Amino acid sequence: MPTSNSKVAVVTKCKAPVEIWSQTVPSPPSGCINIRVDRAGVCGTDVHLWRGDGGDDLEPFVLGHEGVGTIVELGEGVTTDHASYPVAVGDVVYWNPIRPCHSCFECTVQRDLTGCPNGEFFSPASLPTTWASYAQIATLQRGNAFYKVDKSVPCDAFIALGCALPTMLQALEHLGPIEKDEAVLVQGCGAVGLASIMLARMAGARKIIAIDGNPLRLDMARRFGANETLDLQSAASKTQELRAKRVHELTGPRGLSLAIECTGRAEAMEEGLPLLARNGRYLCVGTWAGSGVVAISPFQIVRKALKIIGTTYASPENYFQAARLVEQNHHIFPLAECVTHRFSLEDTERAFEVVASGKAIKAVVEPQTQE
Amino acid sequence: MPTSNSKVAVVTKCKAPVEIWSQTVPSPPSGCINIRVDRAGVCGTDVHLWRGDGGDDLEPFVLGHEGVGTIVELGEGVTTDHASYPVAVGDVVYWNPIRPCHSCFECTVQRDLTGCPNGEFFSPASLPTTWASYAQIATLQRGNAFYKVDKSVPCDAFIALGCALPTMLQALEHLGPIEKDEAVLVQGCGAVGLASIMLARMAGARKIIAIDGNPLRLDMARRFGANETLDLQSAASKTQELRAKRVHELTGPRGLSLAIECTGRAEAMEEGLPLLARNGRYLCVGTWAGSGVVAISPFQIVRKALKIIGTTYASPENYFQAARLVEQNHHIFPLAECVTHRFSLEDTERAFEVVASGKAIKAVVEPQTQE
Amino acid sequence: MPTSNSKVAVVTKCKAPVEIWSQTVPSPPSGCINIRVDRAGVCGTDVHLWRGDGGDDLEPFVLGHEGVGTIVELGEGVTTDHASYPVAVGDVVYWNPIRPCHSCFECTVQRDLTGCPNGEFFSPASLPTTWASYAQIATLQRGNAFYKVDKSVPCDAFIALGCALPTMLQALEHLGPIEKDEAVLVQGCGAVGLASIMLARMAGARKIIAIDGNPLRLDMARRFGANETLDLQSAASKTQELRAKRVHELTGPRGLSLAIECTGRAEAMEEGLPLLARNGRYLCVGTWAGSGVVAISPFQIVRKALKIIGTTYASPENYFQAARLVEQNHHIFPLAECVTHRFSLEDTERAFEVVASGKAIKAVVEPQTQE
Amino acid sequence: MPTSNSKVAVVTKCKAPVEIWSQTVPSPPSGCINIRVDRAGVCGTDVHLWRGDGGDDLEPFVLGHEGVGTIVELGEGVTTDHASYPVAVGDVVYWNPIRPCHSCFECTVQRDLTGCPNGEFFSPASLPTTWASYAQIATLQRGNAFYKVDKSVPCDAFIALGCALPTMLQALEHLGPIEKDEAVLVQGCGAVGLASIMLARMAGARKIIAIDGNPLRLDMARRFGANETLDLQSAASKTQELRAKRVHELTGPRGLSLAIECTGRAEAMEEGLPLLARNGRYLCVGTWAGSGVVAISPFQIVRKALKIIGTTYASPENYFQAARLVEQNHHIFPLAECVTHRFSLEDTERAFEVVASGKAIKAVVEPQTQE
Repeated sequence: MPTSNSKVAVVTKCKAPVEIWSQTVPSPPSGCINIRVDRAGVCGTDVHLWRGDGGDDLEPFVLGHEGVGTIVELGEGVTTDHASYPVAVGDVVYWNPIRPCHSCFECTVQRDLTGCPNGEFFSPASLPTTWASYAQIATLQRGNAFYKVDKSVPCDAFIALGCALPTMLQALEHLGPIEKDEAVLVQGCGAVGLASIMLARMAGARKIIAIDGNPLRLDMARRFGANETLDLQSAASKTQELRAKRVHELTGPRGLSLAIECTGRAEAMEEGLPLLARNGRYLCVGTWAGSGVVAISPFQIVRKALKIIGTTYASPENYFQAARLVEQNHHIFPLAECVTHRFSLEDTERAFEVVASGKAIKAVVEPQTQE
Repeated sequence: MPTSNSKVAVVTKCKAPVEIWSQTVPSPPSGCINIRVDRAGVCGTDVHLWRGDGGDDLEPFVLGHEGVGTIVELGEGVTTDHASYPVAVGDVVYWNPIRPCHSCFECTVQRDLTGCPNGEFFSPASLPTTWASYAQIATLQRGNAFYKVDKSVPCDAFIALGCALPTMLQALEHLGPIEKDEAVLVQGCGAVGLASIMLARMAGARKIIAIDGNPLRLDMARRFGANETLDLQSAASKTQELRAKRVHELTGPRGLSLAIECTGRAEAMEEGLPLLARNGRYLCVGTWAGSGVVAISPFQIVRKALKIIGTTYASPENYFQAARLVEQNHHIFPLAECVTHRFSLEDTERAFEVVASGKAIKAVVEPQTQE
Repeated sequence: MPTSNSKVAVVTKCKAPVEIWSQTVPSPPSGCINIRVDRAGVCGTDVHLWRGDGGDDLEPFVLGHEGVGTIVELGEGVTTDHASYPVAVGDVVYWNPIRPCHSCFECTVQRDLTGCPNGEFFSPASLPTTWASYAQIATLQRGNAFYKVDKSVPCDAFIALGCALPTMLQALEHLGPIEKDEAVLVQGCGAVGLASIMLARMAGARKIIAIDGNPLRLDMARRFGANETLDLQSAASKTQELRAKRVHELTGPRGLSLAIECTGRAEAMEEGLPLLARNGRYLCVGTWAGSGVVAISPFQIVRKALKIIGTTYASPENYFQAARLVEQNHHIFPLAECVTHRFSLEDTERAFEVVASGKAIKAVVEPQTQE
Repeated sequence: MPTSNSKVAVVTKCKAPVEIWSQTVPSPPSGCINIRVDRAGVCGTDVHLWRGDGGDDLEPFVLGHEGVGTIVELGEGVTTDHASYPVAVGDVVYWNPIRPCHSCFECTVQRDLTGCPNGEFFSPASLPTTWASYAQIATLQRGNAFYKVDKSVPCDAFIALGCALPTMLQALEHLGPIEKDEAVLVQGCGAVGLASIMLARMAGARKIIAIDGNPLRLDMARRFGANETLDLQSAASKTQELRAKRVHELTGPRGLSLAIECTGRAEAMEEGLPLLARNGRYLCVGTWAGSGVVAISPFQIVRKALKIIGTTYASPENYFQAARLVEQNHHIFPLAECVTHRFSLEDTERAFEVVASGKAIKAVVEPQTQE
């Protein structure tokens, strides 16, 4: 197969205009595969990176860690996906952008692949090809776990919850299962919040309460299974006191047993933690930046036997699990409808504006779109 | 058997002089047993209660929730302890002062006996007899789990860690096991701290670091298995920065993976939590009163995938487990030597002063001592 | 309230005619409640007991360990059910017939209430009242965990899976959760088998295969969520070899990861165990009698890292959980339609014949039916 | 560094004389290391392989999957062991002979590295170098997890329990922890049995009973912590009935809660399983070959809620854990003294005879010994 030309979206430095570079992509090396990227999800983390919230001394890199695409060529020796299912050109796959090293303490002793300090995540723009998703052709490296998905399921259904659904599946490994009879509070209804609602609904939670300030998201929260939504803009629930009162009413004498922080705002914890009943669990998953601190009471943690659980991002098995969940449940949960905004590679900055504004449920980049 | 006279120590109201009342104890009713209390432990909680730190509207009650004693009479139908071992007059037992109701949500659905809202803990002084331990004769009620212990083991060895060892065993049910290769920080070396060190040592922790300001306790911490002690009074470790530096040096690149708060001071959390490495766990067990708050960073909890675990007091099985641990290990850990101060019932207030001062490792009341 | 007359069905000795005795039921003692039994489930165990499969030296006892009924009078002090929900006369409840002692090794140390050697299960006919369910009025004793259920849900929906649904919920505590991506084989489609299918479906199993020889049950298995049924009477699946071949075809390269024995026939294990793939689990839940042995290969258990898990009957929390599952899912799973045969107390022996024949999905006794 | 000559022991076909081949070992490729093998353990599996018990169509391969050696040269990029500790020439290491693929269902989704169907275990003799341990120089490949050990600990202490200690640590991941108050039966006192006794002792088991027919091993079992040994050759315990009686006497009313099959003989299960009390666990770890079947009673599995757990071999983390256990406990457990027989490479067949005879506790090959 001849080489292909591929446009990729590159951050050269923080807040600088996103550049479109062109790569000449050869046939994949042994153990690698080339894929045509059909959809790339825009994640808040991409925006944080571009803004420099995680540090501003970045080397130029290709954007995009959420992607669904079609195999265009298989490198030597690749006959199956990472779940041992046979793959062929034309199959659609979903992949984990991070490659753990499998030879450090975290990987081999702790079995915590997401903690691998050597894990390769960013795709440096200095390389001739990329495994990132804001690209027309991505070359997945040996070690990028990828999983075949059912082609008959709309591509949007997989990208809708992007890395959020795998991230929440990882979170459940830290947290333990959501129980059938729990009352769950979901703070924030972006992709992580919607994934939380979906998983709580599937687990049979008796009550799911969602908080957000965007009516579009609150509506989607209800469609995903929230029994009650509290709108930060509404008179009935605009103060913390009003919301606390409502949560207590809704959860009754048994009270709230799980709260999930999906807002990215540290202060959400100050609101959510005191709402928990004895043996309650507070899951911290959304706060990916910032130096904010919150005030908590150690006495209350002891007296109520609370647990606060932090969790980072997904491990390969979570991508596999997410793919299966989407395939099995896309008729039940309106996943594809979460994609509210679409952009070409050249419009990446506009996509970032929309995501930063909180107006989108899910924005995607469609790398094959010609300007 | 004729009735017996028994002196008991009663709190009539907060901070008022502890009174000695006299009870006339009849033969135990069906399902109950009478025991001669040999040792009663003085716990910080007793002092808190007397001071009114938990509220000052108390009904008069008999003091003492830690006790070891000898069976003097068995009520009808009592032939075994709560682990199904046969019992007879003259056997020594260790008991759980709390009686869960076994008919509420916490008891029957959550299986969380320590969360039972109907659990009877205080022994009202208005009753003709008592199940509390600051008494010459206690009548254990049906539902007070009691366990026979090996008479050849010194009584002091069981009372040494009082309710602290069962409490830490309960904490491990919430926390999960201490792993063989962990570095553990124990903040505070009272009974809860020493129990933590003992359990970490038995679990094979690779490094145990203990902090306290009392040289007597730090010495005992080393004898229980702490590899290193940090003295709050010493120039080398008197500031939080110096201690943090030392913890980092001692735990090396793998870092600290477990910190246990056994001080009863909320601010300990602010010091200990940031010392944890990725996947670290912070156990809150010591802070039983107070409205203090501490500042924590949600971002750090997410980024390092930390867990903060609160836990309250012991469940019946923990009393059984504690009894077995003491029997098997009293030659290895200097348990009996932890009893540094002894008082008669009449001297209860002096016992409280010593405990409040932090000078004792363990103070006990010996109810059979005649003034 | 005056006393009430209540007919009860009594086994006086094995295989003897079931007798109808009359009890004069007074107001309930303190801590107890009187209920009018609306439905009593007929369980294979009742038939085994009557036949003497568990020993033939029984004292006369009242039959029935599955019941749903309406509160007619509350004893002093009873204001809530065992999940702390308020109760009143007229509420419908579901109860656990076994009362653990809460003072033995199994209850207090192992926390295994179903292993309590002192648990009271049979209701001796020599007592003036009964807690068994083949009765017009049952008096639940202090310690019989009972849970209020939603009156608007048909009574049949709760009794349909009788003690089978709580038993399977207990089994999952031993087994661990059914995973989203498992292929599950259910051997036998009586109440335990249907409960297994329901729980596997709710857990998101990717494939559920059910085996039985009764077309009525196989049809119900499909309605509960089995993807495929293998009919022991059908030419296509009448031999073990044919069924093995079909299971391998249906489960693909990943294979079968969970098999559940719900037949009550020991030889089912010999068929099911070898079908498991590596890390597979075999749950033994149905075989409640018999001295049969089966041949298994220790080498295969090692080489494939298999687990074989036995489990007995339900604990109080499982009755609570079952009640909630029925309330939330009776529109999804055709629970009430499982009740295929109804009998009066006087017809108990005919009920036993139907159950022994395997023709029923679920047979019930309706104690209020007048002959 | 110049190339080195290295003798290796090769099986060319089953039961044929073990041949000594010579390899010319170059500097290690990038990511690999060369080690001088100091000790190679002789494991029953080696004997089984040579005899053809696992199939007789083997390609020629280098023997040895247990090894301890000294680094002689590091390939490019290797600066740490697989626990992130720095390594240098002269360091002593312990390694996992199996390399999982990290790209199949077992590795990436099930997280079961020992189940990897692509894992490379045998070291084909057709390769120019080897990662097996019956070699003077081994070249560990990228993916062979290796861990630095404390040089001051005798080499024999690490090799003593060879792959048996890591295997038992893996077994505990399947089984769950040994509890402080368990009575444990260990069937067979070879390396797996001694590892079981050591781990049960460290876990605080209340009673450890060991069975074997070799007085040397029984003596060692007692030194590792067995409270009681049953000699298959002794009149007092030569029949299954006598041993059963003794186990019941020794375990008392609480009974036996864990039995571990370390004999490699299928029939051990028939003896051990019925000895278990309610909630007992039977661990199958020793039976690595054979088509034997045993008869078990499904009814007893249900009635007593038993668990039977199979487990295969170790995962990388278990090698790390084993290294730490040996370092911390070699003064307490007489590990190095387990090495009872030593052979040169040329004497491999004599080593196999000794191991097959059951006379050795542990036999080792010392590849540096010159004939």
